[in-house]
Amino acid sequence: MRHSPPGAAPGALNIPADALSLNIHSFYYNEHEFHEAELHSLNDIRAQFESKPQMNHWFDIKGFSNKQFLENLADYFKIHRLQMEDVVNVYQRPKAEEYMGHVFFTSRVLAEKDVIIQNDQLSIFLGKNFVITLQDKYEDLLDPIRDRIRQGKGVMRRMSSDYLAYSLMDVVIDNYYPLLERLGDRLDDLQDELMSNPTRDALNRVLHIKKDLISLRRIMWSERDKMNDVLRSGFAEVCEATRVYFRDTYDHCIQLMDIVESYKEVTASLMDVYHSSVSNKLNQVMKVLTIISTIFIPLTFIVGLYGMNFSRVDPETGHFNPMNMPELYSPYGYITICIIMVVIVIAQLIFFLRRGGWRKASCFL
Amino acid sequence: MRHSPPGAAPGALNIPADALSLNIHSFYYNEHEFHEAELHSLNDIRAQFESKPQMNHWFDIKGFSNKQFLENLADYFKIHRLQMEDVVNVYQRPKAEEYMGHVFFTSRVLAEKDVIIQNDQLSIFLGKNFVITLQDKYEDLLDPIRDRIRQGKGVMRRMSSDYLAYSLMDVVIDNYYPLLERLGDRLDDLQDELMSNPTRDALNRVLHIKKDLISLRRIMWSERDKMNDVLRSGFAEVCEATRVYFRDTYDHCIQLMDIVESYKEVTASLMDVYHSSVSNKLNQVMKVLTIISTIFIPLTFIVGLYGMNFSRVDPETGHFNPMNMPELYSPYGYITICIIMVVIVIAQLIFFLRRGGWRKASCFL
Amino acid sequence: MRHSPPGAAPGALNIPADALSLNIHSFYYNEHEFHEAELHSLNDIRAQFESKPQMNHWFDIKGFSNKQFLENLADYFKIHRLQMEDVVNVYQRPKAEEYMGHVFFTSRVLAEKDVIIQNDQLSIFLGKNFVITLQDKYEDLLDPIRDRIRQGKGVMRRMSSDYLAYSLMDVVIDNYYPLLERLGDRLDDLQDELMSNPTRDALNRVLHIKKDLISLRRIMWSERDKMNDVLRSGFAEVCEATRVYFRDTYDHCIQLMDIVESYKEVTASLMDVYHSSVSNKLNQVMKVLTIISTIFIPLTFIVGLYGMNFSRVDPETGHFNPMNMPELYSPYGYITICIIMVVIVIAQLIFFLRRGGWRKASCFL
Amino acid sequence: MRHSPPGAAPGALNIPADALSLNIHSFYYNEHEFHEAELHSLNDIRAQFESKPQMNHWFDIKGFSNKQFLENLADYFKIHRLQMEDVVNVYQRPKAEEYMGHVFFTSRVLAEKDVIIQNDQLSIFLGKNFVITLQDKYEDLLDPIRDRIRQGKGVMRRMSSDYLAYSLMDVVIDNYYPLLERLGDRLDDLQDELMSNPTRDALNRVLHIKKDLISLRRIMWSERDKMNDVLRSGFAEVCEATRVYFRDTYDHCIQLMDIVESYKEVTASLMDVYHSSVSNKLNQVMKVLTIISTIFIPLTFIVGLYGMNFSRVDPETGHFNPMNMPELYSPYGYITICIIMVVIVIAQLIFFLRRGGWRKASCFL
Amino acid sequence: MRHSPPGAAPGALNIPADALSLNIHSFYYNEHEFHEAELHSLNDIRAQFESKPQMNHWFDIKGFSNKQFLENLADYFKIHRLQMEDVVNVYQRPKAEEYMGHVFFTSRVLAEKDVIIQNDQLSIFLGKNFVITLQDKYEDLLDPIRDRIRQGKGVMRRMSSDYLAYSLMDVVIDNYYPLLERLGDRLDDLQDELMSNPTRDALNRVLHIKKDLISLRRIMWSERDKMNDVLRSGFAEVCEATRVYFRDTYDHCIQLMDIVESYKEVTASLMDVYHSSVSNKLNQVMKVLTIISTIFIPLTFIVGLYGMNFSRVDPETGHFNPMNMPELYSPYGYITICIIMVVIVIAQLIFFLRRGGWRKASCFL
Repeated sequence: MRHSPPGAAPGALNIPADALSLNIHSFYYNEHEFHEAELHSLNDIRAQFESKPQMNHWFDIKGFSNKQFLENLADYFKIHRLQMEDVVNVYQRPKAEEYMGHVFFTSRVLAEKDVIIQNDQLSIFLGKNFVITLQDKYEDLLDPIRDRIRQGKGVMRRMSSDYLAYSLMDVVIDNYYPLLERLGDRLDDLQDELMSNPTRDALNRVLHIKKDLISLRRIMWSERDKMNDVLRSGFAEVCEATRVYFRDTYDHCIQLMDIVESYKEVTASLMDVYHSSVSNKLNQVMKVLTIISTIFIPLTFIVGLYGMNFSRVDPETGHFNPMNMPELYSPYGYITICIIMVVIVIAQLIFFLRRGGWRKASCFL
Repeated sequence: MRHSPPGAAPGALNIPADALSLNIHSFYYNEHEFHEAELHSLNDIRAQFESKPQMNHWFDIKGFSNKQFLENLADYFKIHRLQMEDVVNVYQRPKAEEYMGHVFFTSRVLAEKDVIIQNDQLSIFLGKNFVITLQDKYEDLLDPIRDRIRQGKGVMRRMSSDYLAYSLMDVVIDNYYPLLERLGDRLDDLQDELMSNPTRDALNRVLHIKKDLISLRRIMWSERDKMNDVLRSGFAEVCEATRVYFRDTYDHCIQLMDIVESYKEVTASLMDVYHSSVSNKLNQVMKVLTIISTIFIPLTFIVGLYGMNFSRVDPETGHFNPMNMPELYSPYGYITICIIMVVIVIAQLIFFLRRGGWRKASCFL
Repeated sequence: MRHSPPGAAPGALNIPADALSLNIHSFYYNEHEFHEAELHSLNDIRAQFESKPQMNHWFDIKGFSNKQFLENLADYFKIHRLQMEDVVNVYQRPKAEEYMGHVFFTSRVLAEKDVIIQNDQLSIFLGKNFVITLQDKYEDLLDPIRDRIRQGKGVMRRMSSDYLAYSLMDVVIDNYYPLLERLGDRLDDLQDELMSNPTRDALNRVLHIKKDLISLRRIMWSERDKMNDVLRSGFAEVCEATRVYFRDTYDHCIQLMDIVESYKEVTASLMDVYHSSVSNKLNQVMKVLTIISTIFIPLTFIVGLYGMNFSRVDPETGHFNPMNMPELYSPYGYITICIIMVVIVIAQLIFFLRRGGWRKASCFL
Repeated sequence: MRHSPPGAAPGALNIPADALSLNIHSFYYNEHEFHEAELHSLNDIRAQFESKPQMNHWFDIKGFSNKQFLENLADYFKIHRLQMEDVVNVYQRPKAEEYMGHVFFTSRVLAEKDVIIQNDQLSIFLGKNFVITLQDKYEDLLDPIRDRIRQGKGVMRRMSSDYLAYSLMDVVIDNYYPLLERLGDRLDDLQDELMSNPTRDALNRVLHIKKDLISLRRIMWSERDKMNDVLRSGFAEVCEATRVYFRDTYDHCIQLMDIVESYKEVTASLMDVYHSSVSNKLNQVMKVLTIISTIFIPLTFIVGLYGMNFSRVDPETGHFNPMNMPELYSPYGYITICIIMVVIVIAQLIFFLRRGGWRKASCFL
Repeated sequence: MRHSPPGAAPGALNIPADALSLNIHSFYYNEHEFHEAELHSLNDIRAQFESKPQMNHWFDIKGFSNKQFLENLADYFKIHRLQMEDVVNVYQRPKAEEYMGHVFFTSRVLAEKDVIIQNDQLSIFLGKNFVITLQDKYEDLLDPIRDRIRQGKGVMRRMSSDYLAYSLMDVVIDNYYPLLERLGDRLDDLQDELMSNPTRDALNRVLHIKKDLISLRRIMWSERDKMNDVLRSGFAEVCEATRVYFRDTYDHCIQLMDIVESYKEVTASLMDVYHSSVSNKLNQVMKVLTIISTIFIPLTFIVGLYGMNFSRVDPETGHFNPMNMPELYSPYGYITICIIMVVIVIAQLIFFLRRGGWRKASCFL
């Protein structure tokens, strides 16, 4: 999370040291034609924008290293300094704000890389006949939109720039579906794993997914509010025909929120599964200990009994004590004791093997 | 869950490979007569619809394999492409949307098959004198409605097409009751099972029911919102007399939500029951171990004591040591020790059999 | 829970097989006089109602076996078929609906019988000068109201029929107080029982009370909404003077909801108490095991030590081995060992009896 | 909790048998003078009230045994019977109701006596130039207000009777602060106690405080709503200048609610602390058992080993068996075994004393 | 928490004994010039304020020991006594109140010192061309604002006094970010620590952070409400241009609330981690005990078996009992038994080392 240092003047652009260099790609199109160009400065933008006032323009800007360019861009398109600060301080909630003839949208672009969810920002300024997108990375998810402009399929080129802005935000939200599906698969796998083998590592992964879901929920919530703002606030830049499409995206947001909420409840269940799995393991360990002990402790007592040294003859007086352990001198004493011990073991095994033996045992005693 | 690939043009119909072939059944009726027909193309639909403008038409369409037909149908009845996409992408929340002279309803049709809840979609377009239903499966729950049209009982044929649309959605919601009842029965059984035998399999079933309840709650919530939209939004296609019926269905939705919420709380209790059952088992196991150990450990000590080899005669010097274990040479030594051990066992059993023995024991020591 | 089979025509009366036979008791009164009668048909009702248009009428109807009567009644008083269905399908949330010159109220009548809460329905239709109550059982809680009409005490006979409807609903809600008090007493008893003896049966009773509270909360919530509807919706049938009384009942509903919510929190605490009680029991059992083991295991080792057979004389060579267990031949060997063992036991008892011995022991080792 | 029996006529005063006898203290004052008197009947009240119409009157009434007086008072000041019932049935939520020229306030007066929170009611009727307070006990918290009237300090005597009503309610709410502070201190003490010694008694006290907090939260919530009603509802009896003071009390209510909510979360943490403390105790007990067992069980095996009676000479044949336990006849056998056992004990102690020994042990095996 | 004693007259200033002495620093500036001065009395303030009516004034007041000064200040700037009481009673929720030509803001200033969060109050009065700040400590976080006024950078000096008030509150909120970051770092560390070593001290720190988060959430919530009040309530003192900045701060508040909420969920997870870590430890301890017991108990039985004294010769009769323990006299008896015991140990180790041995063992038996 990047933010200005406390006390900095509001609206000051706080360009990070590792910002990428400026890259401007532009489209301008109407129903009949489209053009694509690489631009290099605000002058290029201004020249194209002013020479084709009847066409829709998309200025696709990447890399924030050139602070002067961003400030001039803000001045030219009447962008408020606080909005430009929000573009550069790239952790903003999704939102939609109208200001002096344009609407400022921010979207969170999520992409999963090696189970880590990357959370980038797409900033969009929508004016009467232009869309400006700003991103601080070069790779993005917008290629399907570029292709749809190039191919002229669908209604893209027939509609005004608000439809382009909608399409850009829609593709971002569409990309949440596969991300959530993978998350859901991981949760299913974790449930199986936790049931059979509750390791600390699996618990760690559950907690990690839980954190992801908390931030996803926050993002979905804001995306939904953003779409709601578009539908209710009556921004002049969004025409009625496009509003139907935004309602569709609004529905998608609610669907996504439902999924995230379900996953959150699943995560809570997984913690329960983990705890019960650990308890089960302990139960198993204790059962083993108890069975072994319960079988051998009486046997050990018996063999100890016949290891006592009570003497049949008093060495001092020579008296014969016939009641001192006569079993030891019986011809079948040893074999009898062995048989008794085997019977005890078999009886115990039968007792415990029958379901519910524990309960019976603990109630009886 | 099926959805368009990210970046697809909005409104593109994404027909799955295993879609069923087209099947159109039509009803047209008024208070005095009704007709039923199998239609095969949009032309058939158009012919029937335009030849009987004074009657109510129900076009009951199943199977989505014919993409061209769906697109033409949309064009003919002025259905928005996004709505037709929602029909085909069959996971939509229940909702009601008005658009160009018709209302678009979606309902979730739930049916239980082998404890798995099947979640299908019923899409309904309600116009001034027509109802179009679209489903991607052949079997459905709508036969009672078809019979009521055929038999002309009740008010069905006397009222306009909005009452038909209401009846279709009402029968879907009525079918939630037996489903929830079965779920409730399963929860009751699970509670008994968990109390006596907390297995991992039972836990799994609890978690499974919990997931079902989460998605049921989501559906109920949306159904209720849908009904509320019908009641408040003043759709021109729904007349005042039918609105009373929608209010009744709205009440049913709230009742169903109440049931689902109660079941969710029961599920939470079941997790508690499971945990406490596992703890109880552990307690029982440990009690058995402790009782066995507590009884035999002192006895084993005693027999070990008299297994010591302290000698009455020093073999080296021949001195007689009268204080070395004189008990061993007493004529009644063995029998005395045996009696002492029996007394110890009986005393312990009395101690532990009396309720609260554990507490006394752990406090005393 | 009773409901129509899915697909049944809405408004169809689904009379259960065991419905009681019809019983109509009527009151008609004004400030100066009152009359009471047993009626037997709709004609009787009509005759009385039309002959005394200036008086307040209460038709107190019990038993739903006569379907024809109910349908005619609905027709005569312009009751909607769906409302009559709600009367017969006796599980409805408390609600208030205005329809064609009357207000339809439903109340849940709760009575406890052998710790099972019976949940019956009281349906009330309030018109300009009549009140119709419908119940499917003969015994009810309304006798105090009947007595107040007969005795003419209080304002009952001076006010119009809306005050009668209020009184009927108020007495139903007043009966929730003793019910909740008994529930509260049972919860207090359970807390004591769980603290000392956490049985499965007690847990079962907690879960049972929890389920009761969940449905009570639902009922209270709906009762409160019903009262709120009466206060806000401006039903023409409820005059301003009576509205003050409804506000009082509304306050009672909120009080009852507060009580139910508190009890729900108490139930949650009881689960905690149960779990901690079970853990305590385990701790006690384990303490007993550990103390017994810790005392006897070292002693058993010692007696085992002196049960070893190391020989002072090599039987083969006759060599004398003076270092092999000389203790055994010392005159005071046995008595010394016995004293040593007694000292060990006393030392351990002192160690464990002093508070905190466990912690010290586990830290030291 | 006291309430009328179910079915009682609304507004009937249900005076309890142990009600205190009537006690009326009156103040009447304006900016320049004040008078104080003991009154004994409604006639006294009427005489004073009617003779000084330009002054503010405070009738401070205690003790409800005189039912006739209360009914006459209600008639004279146009108090609704339901309001008078609320005064006597002394468990009412804090609320503010306007009715026929006066506002009826109820406040909960909390006082702690021996860790039990006493919950009394202060009922206030505020009219144009009078305040009537009703309480069923003689001692109260209002002496600071009486002193402020007597001393004429502050703005009390300069402002109208609504400021007096505000002051009375404000002093009640101010008294919640020290009460909550003591509760907070008790919670802090309990946390320390539970950490070191999780007894059942401490758990009981946590549950008791939790119940207190639940009812405190309910009261705060209602007090806040009451203040909000005063601020929003525009009661004619409360003038604009006094409204600022009510806003201040409203802020205090929110502060108090915040404190109560924090304490509730602390209570939930305490349950967690209790559970973890109990688990810790079990862990300590089991560690002691395990260490003792792990050290002595192998030793006991060894001494048992050398207690076996394998014989070097077959008594039957006289054959010499040199492989049967030659250790027993070695001159240094005993001393060697003793040394070996000491080495085993030392090795085990080193192993377990080193942090993490358990984990290593359980992983290794 | 400091508050007036119950019953104190509202608006009475309750100066604490250790209040710091008065310190007034003043700025007055417009776009072209700025001045800075140390003032010493209300006369100084009045002189400066009245002599430069066209400039913006900031009176930066610290130390509350001079009660007379505060009362005179309140009178001069028409500050309500209750507001001045809120300034001195330094625990107020963040809020914004308009009163007689000024807006009164309170902010909570949080600073961390040795992991304890200090919670001070900044009170701001904003009038048409003045800002008064009141704090009860000398050190504060406002130096960046003072520097921005001095340096004249940014828009500070070009805008009216409402922008200054905004900047003061914004810097306070900006300082929450690093505070929360440190809290987040501590939570991450705690998770690692709890995973490996669940000590009571770590649990204590979790509970401490949880308490901090509860009060932080309360503060954020109120800050957000305050900002919302500024945006919605249309205070005359805040002009439209500044409102955009307040909207930015409002966004920051929501961001901070999101972070605090996430941290709260993390804290709840940490309790889970703690409990599962403790359970794991117990499992490990019990595994060690069980393995040691399971290996040695059968061996001890075997050696006990051959320690029995069954005799081959009856000393009384001289009869030879060949079936009494012939193993003892076999030449290879001892070596055979030793080998058998080694085989048993190896078999058990193999059994338990293979993953899942416990489950198999507990199922088999």
